[in-house]
Amino acid sequence: MDAAERLARQLRFIIEADKLKEVFRQSLCSQSRRQENDAEHSWHLALLVITLAEHSNVPDIDVARVLKMVILHDLVEIDAGDTFAYDAAGAADQKEREARAADRIFGLLPDDQAVEFRAIWEEFETRETPEAKFASAVDRLQPMLLNILTDGTSWKKYGITHDRVVARNRTIEEGSEKLWRCMSALLDEAVAKGDLKK
Amino acid sequence: MDAAERLARQLRFIIEADKLKEVFRQSLCSQSRRQENDAEHSWHLALLVITLAEHSNVPDIDVARVLKMVILHDLVEIDAGDTFAYDAAGAADQKEREARAADRIFGLLPDDQAVEFRAIWEEFETRETPEAKFASAVDRLQPMLLNILTDGTSWKKYGITHDRVVARNRTIEEGSEKLWRCMSALLDEAVAKGDLKK
Repeated sequence: MDAAERLARQLRFIIEADKLKEVFRQSLCSQSRRQENDAEHSWHLALLVITLAEHSNVPDIDVARVLKMVILHDLVEIDAGDTFAYDAAGAADQKEREARAADRIFGLLPDDQAVEFRAIWEEFETRETPEAKFASAVDRLQPMLLNILTDGTSWKKYGITHDRVVARNRTIEEGSEKLWRCMSALLDEAVAKGDLKK
Repeated sequence: MDAAERLARQLRFIIEADKLKEVFRQSLCSQSRRQENDAEHSWHLALLVITLAEHSNVPDIDVARVLKMVILHDLVEIDAGDTFAYDAAGAADQKEREARAADRIFGLLPDDQAVEFRAIWEEFETRETPEAKFASAVDRLQPMLLNILTDGTSWKKYGITHDRVVARNRTIEEGSEKLWRCMSALLDEAVAKGDLKK
């Protein structure tokens, strides 16, 4: 592949990625209370990473790698769509749908970058390295925070209870015990306020 | 400051930053053709950085630092608003408005992080380091790309001509001569298509 073709493939990937701005989530933005999209969500995660990295259980994680994970982690949803955290039916074939999407979307890139970006995405999904555990922690923390800021609107809409929120999100403590303790306290406050059912 | 107060200040900053999702730009998203907001734009820049960093004039730039710049660079617009690239009147007091915004928004953080993040933002604005030159290059490239993908809608709306686009954006070559050559060719195509006036 010559240099021009390499850059052309990179631009095709960047242009395809623009579609992430149209993939809407169940989380509501705190101000307008409209649904958040995956591009905004991914940026917000990146901001959480650079602000909160010091709270990782494992000190001195590779922040650049965590940033790459959160920037790339939702691109597969361009094809696979957003699967709501509490949607068991959607979760059944989610892995397969997302793997196919990863083939297509990362496959737009020059081969070496396709391999590199896909490996970063798989590392995030597998959640075994300290970097992936921290990236996953902020990916779970941020929607809870938005729910708290919007009086539990999306919890109420789907009848999600405190025990389900805890069951889903306590993996945060694998990335950061400190952040989980903080979120846990905020969930208790949401229960006390009536925004989240016991 | 104790640990709890430190984390509380970090969360206040993260919550305040959510407002960036409501700051709309002149660029249109390629799919829905609605206006893009600053949060989406910042995420897209981060994706451009990790995809295109190899094209920096200076090899082996600090990609993590470039990522921090693009993640943080528009936060001041929460207070100062988005100043359209070709708005001379808005540009007159833009620096002052943005400096006040930086004081307030980065000032929400613990002091050491406020200093660190503000320095990253100022490095971006000053455009002297190789990292800032590359961050600025993608910040100028991305809106041009969206304009090209949407048949020059925002250029046409404001009567922006080819010479003004070139005058505004050729600083891209300070970050990457290769990317500027590529964009320059795409601008010529836009002229040929009638999407951008000579």
